[in-house]
Amino acid sequence: MRGNTFGKIFSITTAGESHGGAIAVIVDGCPAKFKLEAKDIQKQLNRRRPGQSNLTTTRKEADQVEILAGLSQKITLGTPILMIIKNKDARNHDYEHLKNIYRPSHADFSVEKKYGIREWRGGGRASARETAARVAGGAIAKKYLKLKLNIKIYSYVEQIGPVKAVVQEEDISLTKIENNPIRCPDPKKAQQMIKYLEKIKKQGDSTGGVIRTVIKNTPLGLGEPVFDKLSADLGKAMLSINAVKGFELGAGFASASMKGSEHNDLFHSDSNGHVKTKTNFSAGIQGGISNGQDIYFRVAFKPVATINQKQTTVNTKGESVKFQGRGRHDACVVPRAVPIVEAMSAITLLDHYLRQQCYR
Amino acid sequence: MRGNTFGKIFSITTAGESHGGAIAVIVDGCPAKFKLEAKDIQKQLNRRRPGQSNLTTTRKEADQVEILAGLSQKITLGTPILMIIKNKDARNHDYEHLKNIYRPSHADFSVEKKYGIREWRGGGRASARETAARVAGGAIAKKYLKLKLNIKIYSYVEQIGPVKAVVQEEDISLTKIENNPIRCPDPKKAQQMIKYLEKIKKQGDSTGGVIRTVIKNTPLGLGEPVFDKLSADLGKAMLSINAVKGFELGAGFASASMKGSEHNDLFHSDSNGHVKTKTNFSAGIQGGISNGQDIYFRVAFKPVATINQKQTTVNTKGESVKFQGRGRHDACVVPRAVPIVEAMSAITLLDHYLRQQCYR
Amino acid sequence: MRGNTFGKIFSITTAGESHGGAIAVIVDGCPAKFKLEAKDIQKQLNRRRPGQSNLTTTRKEADQVEILAGLSQKITLGTPILMIIKNKDARNHDYEHLKNIYRPSHADFSVEKKYGIREWRGGGRASARETAARVAGGAIAKKYLKLKLNIKIYSYVEQIGPVKAVVQEEDISLTKIENNPIRCPDPKKAQQMIKYLEKIKKQGDSTGGVIRTVIKNTPLGLGEPVFDKLSADLGKAMLSINAVKGFELGAGFASASMKGSEHNDLFHSDSNGHVKTKTNFSAGIQGGISNGQDIYFRVAFKPVATINQKQTTVNTKGESVKFQGRGRHDACVVPRAVPIVEAMSAITLLDHYLRQQCYR
Amino acid sequence: MRGNTFGKIFSITTAGESHGGAIAVIVDGCPAKFKLEAKDIQKQLNRRRPGQSNLTTTRKEADQVEILAGLSQKITLGTPILMIIKNKDARNHDYEHLKNIYRPSHADFSVEKKYGIREWRGGGRASARETAARVAGGAIAKKYLKLKLNIKIYSYVEQIGPVKAVVQEEDISLTKIENNPIRCPDPKKAQQMIKYLEKIKKQGDSTGGVIRTVIKNTPLGLGEPVFDKLSADLGKAMLSINAVKGFELGAGFASASMKGSEHNDLFHSDSNGHVKTKTNFSAGIQGGISNGQDIYFRVAFKPVATINQKQTTVNTKGESVKFQGRGRHDACVVPRAVPIVEAMSAITLLDHYLRQQCYR
Repeated sequence: MRGNTFGKIFSITTAGESHGGAIAVIVDGCPAKFKLEAKDIQKQLNRRRPGQSNLTTTRKEADQVEILAGLSQKITLGTPILMIIKNKDARNHDYEHLKNIYRPSHADFSVEKKYGIREWRGGGRASARETAARVAGGAIAKKYLKLKLNIKIYSYVEQIGPVKAVVQEEDISLTKIENNPIRCPDPKKAQQMIKYLEKIKKQGDSTGGVIRTVIKNTPLGLGEPVFDKLSADLGKAMLSINAVKGFELGAGFASASMKGSEHNDLFHSDSNGHVKTKTNFSAGIQGGISNGQDIYFRVAFKPVATINQKQTTVNTKGESVKFQGRGRHDACVVPRAVPIVEAMSAITLLDHYLRQQCYR
Repeated sequence: MRGNTFGKIFSITTAGESHGGAIAVIVDGCPAKFKLEAKDIQKQLNRRRPGQSNLTTTRKEADQVEILAGLSQKITLGTPILMIIKNKDARNHDYEHLKNIYRPSHADFSVEKKYGIREWRGGGRASARETAARVAGGAIAKKYLKLKLNIKIYSYVEQIGPVKAVVQEEDISLTKIENNPIRCPDPKKAQQMIKYLEKIKKQGDSTGGVIRTVIKNTPLGLGEPVFDKLSADLGKAMLSINAVKGFELGAGFASASMKGSEHNDLFHSDSNGHVKTKTNFSAGIQGGISNGQDIYFRVAFKPVATINQKQTTVNTKGESVKFQGRGRHDACVVPRAVPIVEAMSAITLLDHYLRQQCYR
Repeated sequence: MRGNTFGKIFSITTAGESHGGAIAVIVDGCPAKFKLEAKDIQKQLNRRRPGQSNLTTTRKEADQVEILAGLSQKITLGTPILMIIKNKDARNHDYEHLKNIYRPSHADFSVEKKYGIREWRGGGRASARETAARVAGGAIAKKYLKLKLNIKIYSYVEQIGPVKAVVQEEDISLTKIENNPIRCPDPKKAQQMIKYLEKIKKQGDSTGGVIRTVIKNTPLGLGEPVFDKLSADLGKAMLSINAVKGFELGAGFASASMKGSEHNDLFHSDSNGHVKTKTNFSAGIQGGISNGQDIYFRVAFKPVATINQKQTTVNTKGESVKFQGRGRHDACVVPRAVPIVEAMSAITLLDHYLRQQCYR
Repeated sequence: MRGNTFGKIFSITTAGESHGGAIAVIVDGCPAKFKLEAKDIQKQLNRRRPGQSNLTTTRKEADQVEILAGLSQKITLGTPILMIIKNKDARNHDYEHLKNIYRPSHADFSVEKKYGIREWRGGGRASARETAARVAGGAIAKKYLKLKLNIKIYSYVEQIGPVKAVVQEEDISLTKIENNPIRCPDPKKAQQMIKYLEKIKKQGDSTGGVIRTVIKNTPLGLGEPVFDKLSADLGKAMLSINAVKGFELGAGFASASMKGSEHNDLFHSDSNGHVKTKTNFSAGIQGGISNGQDIYFRVAFKPVATINQKQTTVNTKGESVKFQGRGRHDACVVPRAVPIVEAMSAITLLDHYLRQQCYR
């Protein structure tokens, strides 16, 4: 009820503050007899880790994962899998000046009003550091989906600030996405994005962006209407990520101005006798249930709230004060959010796959 | 697990096919000792009901609600509230031609692949008729929020097809919204929307649209990070509604191209010493928790899939066939979806309010 | 959260007060494509119905079930199944004298303190009338278990007041159980029980009893340790039934004084090479998981609280008053509770079966 | 869904195998701003710890708890609390001989059939070592209940094998319970129990027992009928503990042979005008809801399955083999189970207290 669990059959329960002892996740509902080891997880964590390029925060966290339960000789037991990532480079003195201030557009104020207390060191659990636990849990789901069901999930940066890429279907591959620190498979636009980010950073400012995700080979029949539609649960998964302000599936907001005769995805049978659609504005989900076509969606991230500019705000007494960010932070979280979006997608898909399995 | 329950403390569990005996909802978790009677519910159902204007389907359903449990002399008992809406005008013969066809962009195909069976009469549970149960449940939440907490929820049509209204803050009132059958408080744009709808209908086509919602007076501290953020649960609530393809909170997708220095909502104290923000790009939710400012969001609806034009599709054997819609249907569901959006907003808000109450 | 839902994958959500409009249940998670009709349900409801013999309350309720959703031409759709049982013989004037009194050992006092309000007509939702909804939901589970999985559930009365039957394995059959109004397959003891009940009734008193249940052919591997052990969920199912005060599985309380060398169920292979146990003190559940042996347990019911004798109690002002039961009530609910125990057993078993299916 | 979470608002999610890296628990839903430190937890863990007296297993586990999340300077943040207990003395070679054997009355067989794999080292998650996580989580609940609500929970050993104590109300205190290694507040019977245990141990045998619990000062109105009655959830909590085979509340099985006129708890007002009952056969719970009187119940434990005697069983090929226990194990777990029963009681109570708080 306190909102720290996601998923119903395959679920993650997370714990950990940015500057506490550790970030942790218990993954429950992972199928038994599945090969798994720390390096499967570490690979994804390294993509989210701070300090991976000069575009990101300089906080140095190895984000080394330990698996403490749920495995026997690198095989899952069907029991809960516990993973721990110890916090190392938590410079608490960096945060003393935040103790009595509500930073603009941060969760400081709302968290304190909710719980009556707030961990001001590093933002506590409101810090995006929390998402390391999601990436760890998602790495398991992603591996399972890929190996057992051939489901592939690709997320990439489509937009940084005003710079938008137009990515061709054939350019969507892990290699092309990981080819640059922006994680945009359009190398030209990626260069522009990098330049934009450098400029913004120099201004002591920050920016937002958009991540697009494509999921291939989803089995027919996933999604549980009327409330747990696959689209609704993917939407919730994304909107639960820090800084996310928008989600659109398929044609999304553009569909609002389309006619039915344009938007309808006509069915036909392919050469193997499989029912397919000619267009895919529905993004592989109809009536909240997967129809076998590619699922794709876009996720909007607001700009990072911490900026190196003087802003007015209030302190905990309600007095007007000036505040300027000093901590180590990213000017844009979007490239590092790519593995987070993938992780949440994978958890949602695997959860819905297992939910549907009950009836097979 | 089959996805027919929404909410954790204040929850609705719904049942009912479009052409079965009834649409029903069990509301669990409603506070006791609250005045409630059928007409509170009926008022909202009438706003969703088919046949309310010549812009909607001609299906005639009085949508008369009966409350069969949970009340004693018009007072809630704290026990589950059962509401039933009998189906009356279900012309089953209208649907015989759909038995062996997968209508384009409908749930026919995905539903059949999921369950191995499909109610082809009226779309079964994939029909938007299901949403009557949500409106009934939401009417209770809405009344409670308004009377006990002074929380007000306004939804209105902002866009129909290509026609977009720009609504001023002061024009957002129930009277102005209900002033025309489109439910757009901008009367001029409403007329253009009506004209566009009439044109589209004549073409045998359909269109989508956008609903905007504003929620006033939300208490501080609602929302349960890290997964059940208020924004995430509102997003899921909206994306669970038939035909919804997009959700954006506050600045939404536009925030992606904004700088932190533009987007940040600076705190100040108002004359009563309450902490407020100067701008409200965050839409009243920071770190997934309400901060007391107005909450507002936009919801995108795709065009209605049923159109009176000949389309190619496949039958259940996978053979190519021609199909043209004949049933009674709307050319645009968006005006009738306004009370649905309000209902789901109210359920989400009241659920989160009660979740937070545990700790007071 | 208000406790009106039982089961996770196959679940029942119930509503209805004893003297409201109806008793109802929404069954969610029933597998699709399963033959079902009202008479499958009615058969079980008739076993629970008041007025079925002169041993029970004289309240006349046909307990006629209507299925209003979830079926198409007597086949389940995989959507929620709504069943309604209208209340007919609710003589509200019978209860006026209870308005301001807390009846001894009834829920009147605790309900009023919990909700701040209490339906004094017929005990509201604290009435055992609520269990009609369980029987209706359980009838579906029971039919499914029997037809699809060959799981058979037999409950019978083992004890009424001081009269205890010793039932042989070979006497456990539906015919022998239904052979007398007590539902005890030992015909001699059944007669003694009837006599005891008649005597007790004449004294204006009431009595308790014990129901024993045997479940045959449970598949291997059901139960979800560490908390949702099959034994724990069966125990909760039973302890949630009105008037139940005790639950013991297998050797139960007697096991406390046994030695390991006596209690241990030694494994062997039968002639088909299946692993079996020589004894079955574990009652088919080891480590909370079914091992294929018969599951059996006992459930203790306290005596009916309403008696036709003058008792002292307090009114809602806390003043001492005399109270004597006048309503129509059973001197012993145990024979009518047999189908309730079966229903809750069946729901628990099917729920756990489906939970395990996710991983097959 | 895999059964590793208990509680709805105050919940524990546990992980960890007997011989894996650690036993862990994430406590979600603990109220914020509550003083808590490791020694609060350690005190309870020490009561469950192996090796605390010569009556228990000789396995040496310090069971040292680390709190890695959820606190800031010994104050709860309202965020999930992560506690870890590292496994130290896990002698894996002790278990090699169990790899291919199904030990009698252990979970080896049913676990392997369920998951398709089994951790044979130390019984994996079927080991009672798992309960350390419950004790850690329960220690928080117990402290909260005591400090904030004055609710006191006392569990003690009432029976070991055939030796039964009759404990007077006034002898129920922590000091008297902890006065001997059996945790029986009747010192004379405790001595007999110890003697019985020594005898049984010498025989290479084991025994069961009964724990009785008394809960004082429960607020009015806890429990959520119709399914989540306080009695039902306490029962489930107890039946989820390893080796538990029976649960009875109040008069329990004895109530089956009582008359209503004997069993009914008559209400009266005490000198403060509070409504009380003269007797308390209902054990403080009526209609599934607490009525303010003492709650008390009994829990039956079967004898330990591992004994130092030669028994016949089968190996994983189904062949008959001889087996004799060699690992370090208790001849009776009941004294060490006392803090486990208290922990599960506390979690259930606090969970229900918070559930009820939503409506205040």
